[in-house]
Amino acid sequence: MGLVIDGLQYANWSPRIFAEMRAGGVDCVHATVAYHETFREMVYRLQEWNRRFADHADMIARATSAEDILAARASGRTAIVLGLQTCTPIEDDLGLIEILHQLGIRLMQLSYNNQSLLATGCYEAEDPGLTRFGREAVAEMNRVGLVIDLSHTAERSSLEAISASRRPVTISHANPAWWHRALRNKSDEVLRALVAKGGMLGLSLYPHHLAAGSDCTLGDFASMAAECVSRYGADHVGIGSDLCQDQPDSVVDWMRRGRWTRGPEFGEGSAAMPGFPPMPAWFGGNLDFGRIRDGLARAGLAAGIVDRVMGDNWLRFYRESFGPG
Amino acid sequence: MGLVIDGLQYANWSPRIFAEMRAGGVDCVHATVAYHETFREMVYRLQEWNRRFADHADMIARATSAEDILAARASGRTAIVLGLQTCTPIEDDLGLIEILHQLGIRLMQLSYNNQSLLATGCYEAEDPGLTRFGREAVAEMNRVGLVIDLSHTAERSSLEAISASRRPVTISHANPAWWHRALRNKSDEVLRALVAKGGMLGLSLYPHHLAAGSDCTLGDFASMAAECVSRYGADHVGIGSDLCQDQPDSVVDWMRRGRWTRGPEFGEGSAAMPGFPPMPAWFGGNLDFGRIRDGLARAGLAAGIVDRVMGDNWLRFYRESFGPG
Repeated sequence: MGLVIDGLQYANWSPRIFAEMRAGGVDCVHATVAYHETFREMVYRLQEWNRRFADHADMIARATSAEDILAARASGRTAIVLGLQTCTPIEDDLGLIEILHQLGIRLMQLSYNNQSLLATGCYEAEDPGLTRFGREAVAEMNRVGLVIDLSHTAERSSLEAISASRRPVTISHANPAWWHRALRNKSDEVLRALVAKGGMLGLSLYPHHLAAGSDCTLGDFASMAAECVSRYGADHVGIGSDLCQDQPDSVVDWMRRGRWTRGPEFGEGSAAMPGFPPMPAWFGGNLDFGRIRDGLARAGLAAGIVDRVMGDNWLRFYRESFGPG
Repeated sequence: MGLVIDGLQYANWSPRIFAEMRAGGVDCVHATVAYHETFREMVYRLQEWNRRFADHADMIARATSAEDILAARASGRTAIVLGLQTCTPIEDDLGLIEILHQLGIRLMQLSYNNQSLLATGCYEAEDPGLTRFGREAVAEMNRVGLVIDLSHTAERSSLEAISASRRPVTISHANPAWWHRALRNKSDEVLRALVAKGGMLGLSLYPHHLAAGSDCTLGDFASMAAECVSRYGADHVGIGSDLCQDQPDSVVDWMRRGRWTRGPEFGEGSAAMPGFPPMPAWFGGNLDFGRIRDGLARAGLAAGIVDRVMGDNWLRFYRESFGPG
């Protein structure tokens, strides 16, 4: 197929960014709708997406299935798959999971850095594992076809979610901790458990997830990707850039602090570097996926495998995951 | 086709009622989801419907299109079309109209007895017509395919909504005022305007809408239906029973009083008859649509016209109305 699919972006969406997706040949993007929003607040965000789909129907199209992605590509548009970065929008209400699916949401993280009602986030000191509600939510997400995303979930909670899930799950945007030790990067044990159940890893381009940060070279990133293909299988690796384009620092602040703290909170940054770090020189946004493709080829991956990593794996995973289980 | 479609029910839904729908050969029911509920409260009601569709998939099926209705019939199930009896669930937010449609709602009344943010209800002393927000809502409902229902809307507001709407609208459950004068029954002028724009009238079996009330005879009802066919056209008349089965008086109270009054409010009843009046002897519920069919034939309607009134007109109207405009 040779699709280009980005497993996660959270941009300050605009016609300019959509035009870049088209110019960059990006067939599909999993776009974050909400973080710490309540259900009703998330619906406001969905209404904004409804407007975007209506106003920019020449460049983007809503996708809730693999077929929608292929149809968008055939009509020269970028398919947008909608997802949530934490479970706050389902409040304490199991029935909202099916409602999310009916509203077109197709992926949801179980936790975002902090403890949630479902699972522990990767910044907590203690990780007691999947909660009682978390086990119910995993089963319900499996039933309706809402993909479990563990990108910001802690180690034990991730292992328990992978084990509890009857269907493959994803870590849509993170890198292996063996390449770069970071709270958000994942242990080899978690990644092996993920792919053993048919799951998908999306490799992140967020500088705090990269060895050498903003100075990471394309060659180093591509070598890591090739090693992931070797360890985890050519069918289980994709790209999840974590691109956060054109967002003001106030939005980064919302992502990090939500309403749960008034104190400073720098996420993977620091007081000295509170804002968003500069992207690596070779990946500034949607125009640069061709460079990653070239880098993967130069790292020794066969053309067929490069195609899978650049998007075909996500297409297969979405096809298997978005319908009722 | 010969379908049986009921243009409105609001029952205390149960497997027993669904079994009656099957036993009565009812192919489709437009079921009320909510009255005075906020958006979030309406979502709770939708979650209950999600459970019903899952738990009783042998008897009922969700329908959001005419094709769904035909598929349900082919599989021996009753199709349920979901609707709202007033606009409270959209709050003051135009964008919630598309969200309702995405959640599977297909009809919404503009007002329920009282003044709403969109239009005046039939119990108000003054009717200033469609509001500013009401005009926006009519256009948005037309755009997304959410049917405008004027059953409880006042005269001028109804005429203005019919005129403002680019698409046919419905009065899903009411009778002509020339047959029985009641606040909820409709003037000949409104009904002629309705059908001139391609709209549908669903004839009500709620005793307060019937000449002679609970003592109304089937012959009298069927003669009225035949006169409606004569005046308004065989393509524009159907049944909307307004059946409110097994509901406790507390629910009748919620329908009438919502949260807008603490005083007594008897709707079309009175202090002497505060509850739900007994149904006419010949129509107790979903088992009795065959009697209405027979009554229409005895009133002189040709078999093809009886089929249209019993359900085929609703099917055509739903087919033309439920998609984007």
